[in-house]
Amino acid sequence: MLITSRDNNKIKHVRKLLDKKISMNEGLFVIEGENLVEEAIKNNLLTELYVLEGNKCNYNFNYDYVTLDVMKSMSPLNSTPRIIGVSKFINKNELGDRIVILDEVQDPGNVGTIIRNCVAFNIDTIVLSKGCVSPYNDKVLRSTGGMIYNINIIIGNLDNIIEEIKKRNIKIYGTSLKSSISLNNIPKTNKYAICFGNEGNGISENVLNKCDMNVRIDMNEQCESLNVGVSSGIVLYYMYKG
Amino acid sequence: MLITSRDNNKIKHVRKLLDKKISMNEGLFVIEGENLVEEAIKNNLLTELYVLEGNKCNYNFNYDYVTLDVMKSMSPLNSTPRIIGVSKFINKNELGDRIVILDEVQDPGNVGTIIRNCVAFNIDTIVLSKGCVSPYNDKVLRSTGGMIYNINIIIGNLDNIIEEIKKRNIKIYGTSLKSSISLNNIPKTNKYAICFGNEGNGISENVLNKCDMNVRIDMNEQCESLNVGVSSGIVLYYMYKG
Repeated sequence: MLITSRDNNKIKHVRKLLDKKISMNEGLFVIEGENLVEEAIKNNLLTELYVLEGNKCNYNFNYDYVTLDVMKSMSPLNSTPRIIGVSKFINKNELGDRIVILDEVQDPGNVGTIIRNCVAFNIDTIVLSKGCVSPYNDKVLRSTGGMIYNINIIIGNLDNIIEEIKKRNIKIYGTSLKSSISLNNIPKTNKYAICFGNEGNGISENVLNKCDMNVRIDMNEQCESLNVGVSSGIVLYYMYKG
Repeated sequence: MLITSRDNNKIKHVRKLLDKKISMNEGLFVIEGENLVEEAIKNNLLTELYVLEGNKCNYNFNYDYVTLDVMKSMSPLNSTPRIIGVSKFINKNELGDRIVILDEVQDPGNVGTIIRNCVAFNIDTIVLSKGCVSPYNDKVLRSTGGMIYNINIIIGNLDNIIEEIKKRNIKIYGTSLKSSISLNNIPKTNKYAICFGNEGNGISENVLNKCDMNVRIDMNEQCESLNVGVSSGIVLYYMYKG
């Protein structure tokens, strides 16, 4: 079928999913491009598929063709994609053995970069506090480099999740500029959870107090702090190169 | 004096400096906020200063008051600053002992993050190829976290500069995903130059061939590459923690 109107109910629904609240409520998010659509199909998470008219579609999945105008109406990007899908969230609510916890990280580029770092350095689960930017935000998806389906994502209450991690005997490391313990003094193990905080304020005091140990990255005192995407890369690389 | 018109010649000149070409030709760039203005004064690089009417200015520097409308016309940011200055470039054309070389790095956020990493990990000179985004671009300045005056910046022809570095017996390390040498096998020394490449294409072949050694950052094969801001952080931290 060819959808020619922006006011088609299916198309209106896709547009609504670009809103964080509605996306969170429904557990669905919008993906653009062949790469992410293929990953969604592989993971049995794709629920809808729209292809720009005039393009071939070889996926074994029920889809609709749409006009250029309709495609544009669904994409927040400047360049119009040839393919758009709707995917279920990746959330499995299962904790792994190597966990990253994000406490109120707000910048989409930073969250995307951290997800990419997590996949690069063998993190199996990323936990985001409810105040973080949604990992399913279009800007986050662009910064992940297509890595979103390569990691288990949990969005929830950090207090409860940290308790769960502790029950499983996994050590939780906080990151703090004020800590007296240098990263290079942290023992390398197979199971660990590492927490990174908000761009301006760092990890909230409440969460910091629950960490087993807080570490700092040594640096020249002229520099006040690093970008959180960079500091996550340094810490995760250190733990990975065991 | 209070400047009330956007068409004032001094104000028109500030606006022109927001253009990369004009900024490069004149060796001047626009800075916003107390932090950068103070650094520019400290470094004897400030040439002009404009203060939003109604605000105090305690700097021992000749300045003009401007109306809100005039201030807005000079700032590419959404939030209007209380103070705007014009600064000379930091370029000293002197090579230090710990050098970062950027080959066609295009994204302002990445260049800003790399400058911040350089200051954090004791790099004294950053060299940018002419095709890189200008380090004096307003988006770069925001991502540096105010660190722009803490490093020597050289913009120039990489061929000539690499030759100069070699003459000084400083080893040049390239970064490449295809390299067989892992970062952790690199000897830690007091003098080094490290080269990072374009976001999509990496370091150009010509430059890569001139490097003494090319290194890779080990990572899970599911991940194709890291963000260049992140990889620079990992490599520079490794060299810093000698």
